[in-house]
Amino acid sequence: MRAIAIDAMGGDLAPDEVVKGVAAVSLQTDIQCVLVGDERRIQELLERAEYNPEHIDIHPAGEVIGMAEDPKQAVKDKRDASILVAARLVAEGRADALVSAGNTGAAVLACARHFNVIPGIRKTALASVYPRQTEYPGQDHLALLLDVGATIRCEALELVQFAIMGSAYAKRVSKVASPRVALLNMGSEPNKGSPELVQAHRVLQSLSGLNFIGNIEGNDLVKGKADVIVCEGLVGNVALKLLEGTAEVMMYVAGAAAGESWRFRLGMRMMAGGVDRLRELADYTTYGGAPILGFENIFIKAHGRSPARAVANAVKVAAKAARDGVPEEIAAGVAAMR
Amino acid sequence: MRAIAIDAMGGDLAPDEVVKGVAAVSLQTDIQCVLVGDERRIQELLERAEYNPEHIDIHPAGEVIGMAEDPKQAVKDKRDASILVAARLVAEGRADALVSAGNTGAAVLACARHFNVIPGIRKTALASVYPRQTEYPGQDHLALLLDVGATIRCEALELVQFAIMGSAYAKRVSKVASPRVALLNMGSEPNKGSPELVQAHRVLQSLSGLNFIGNIEGNDLVKGKADVIVCEGLVGNVALKLLEGTAEVMMYVAGAAAGESWRFRLGMRMMAGGVDRLRELADYTTYGGAPILGFENIFIKAHGRSPARAVANAVKVAAKAARDGVPEEIAAGVAAMR
Repeated sequence: MRAIAIDAMGGDLAPDEVVKGVAAVSLQTDIQCVLVGDERRIQELLERAEYNPEHIDIHPAGEVIGMAEDPKQAVKDKRDASILVAARLVAEGRADALVSAGNTGAAVLACARHFNVIPGIRKTALASVYPRQTEYPGQDHLALLLDVGATIRCEALELVQFAIMGSAYAKRVSKVASPRVALLNMGSEPNKGSPELVQAHRVLQSLSGLNFIGNIEGNDLVKGKADVIVCEGLVGNVALKLLEGTAEVMMYVAGAAAGESWRFRLGMRMMAGGVDRLRELADYTTYGGAPILGFENIFIKAHGRSPARAVANAVKVAAKAARDGVPEEIAAGVAAMR
Repeated sequence: MRAIAIDAMGGDLAPDEVVKGVAAVSLQTDIQCVLVGDERRIQELLERAEYNPEHIDIHPAGEVIGMAEDPKQAVKDKRDASILVAARLVAEGRADALVSAGNTGAAVLACARHFNVIPGIRKTALASVYPRQTEYPGQDHLALLLDVGATIRCEALELVQFAIMGSAYAKRVSKVASPRVALLNMGSEPNKGSPELVQAHRVLQSLSGLNFIGNIEGNDLVKGKADVIVCEGLVGNVALKLLEGTAEVMMYVAGAAAGESWRFRLGMRMMAGGVDRLRELADYTTYGGAPILGFENIFIKAHGRSPARAVANAVKVAAKAARDGVPEEIAAGVAAMR
């Protein structure tokens, strides 16, 4: 039985939606949840919802780091912040994974302070899932993009390790037996891009345990060519937010047209599996849950605006990742490289 | 009266569509066009179209650089290639600007070989226009993004110069009196991103001649916040192609729904000025015409798949940029900085 530590106070809609999401999980699964934060407030919110008390513990934390606070300063000043207390629970083995919808920078710093980095890993990576078209049978409709902002600039070896980490995560969590891994670049040829990209391409091609398909370009991100897309944080962050921005526009268009036109519905179905796919594309940041990879412990970052359903989803993903041994899979991949 | 040298043989649809486009320009304007390439073939194609012979000259060039050829090797081997001959005509003052729909790498190398870089400019930049939502009255519906692939990695000073060049181009060609210039980054705060971005932000803020609005993020690209968006080539290339990819998907959706639903049409009109705006978004690469900035001469790169209308548009943009003294404006901006 896995225990997941949840930062009850982090997120735009915390603690209300976080507690509601965890209450739902307690009825749907046998995951042990530890809600970390203001005990009285959490208990009050639980009483308002239906929940299974056998699956939920509350662990007190007296402070909260706000969404707009400077992460470094906040982590330094608020030793009793819910995110730090929750990370400590995981580091001490009292929980198996961490979930937070709060301040991303503070969460990353909390992990960096309390978790061990997997031996051999040089940089941790923030990953994000997003839906795209699928191209082969059984392909997950979500792709994994990393890094999306933890490491601004990357050396070749760091990109290679991101590929190994992303592949391990996709293999375990999305159950794609041999995820297709690609480098995001400005051309498909192996010699394209910065020296770091050229070098990363060369190393990735030589790794036997990896299904490396080469370089892909920006327009390929919305297609099903690759399951795991690797890039440095600056590029990944811009690409992810651009996807988010265009998805919002598309959602607006879909909302205006979906109910009206059979041709529109047919077109959408032909394109990518229906209007639901489009809705998903607009919602992916809310429902995705982004792992930070490279630590010995699992951390799933839920979107800041996560409603209860998204929190519940993040808790389930965290439990799955811990149960299926994602850090162990990454460690094995890195060890095999050396 | 301005003369524009046009690489008649460059592009997926060359020479047919290139010659057709120039024939149209000869009837619509008094721009002097010099078609560079296979004389006989060009003459044949002209005879098939309507054109004004007073506005068109043909200049022979015996070789062609194909779209898929390795740029470095091709430029080295084919001294009589149309793009090289056309660039020489401009360098010798026999034409005022260059237009090509051919191999981008070869075109950039041709310019680098024959054109002078504006004194003080460290790196040239490939810019691209794309449509986005507009936010203030009189705002051009096209924004300028640079660099999109000429310089993979940039120093802070290079980013600053891109801002000056982009602002000068937008001021002269799109007639926005004081274009809003932004840095594409992974957060809006001045301290976000790589050290180069932080430093560029600091310098840009101190420049009095520039309307610098700070950092924008990926999702802001499709909004009207900024008129000129500055980034290094790797980031710009990924962002541009991602815009292209999602625009294609949107176009498909629009095509399926546009005729059917009054609500869809209303939505589109509310959103960004109607279905035409969406069509434009899908077509922008074809009709945009991308300047390479930083040389003393104007070069407008038309999209490889340019049909006649796009070629005609690129020729007109080139004539406008030369007439309105874009390189001089850039030189003045760079000089003011020092």
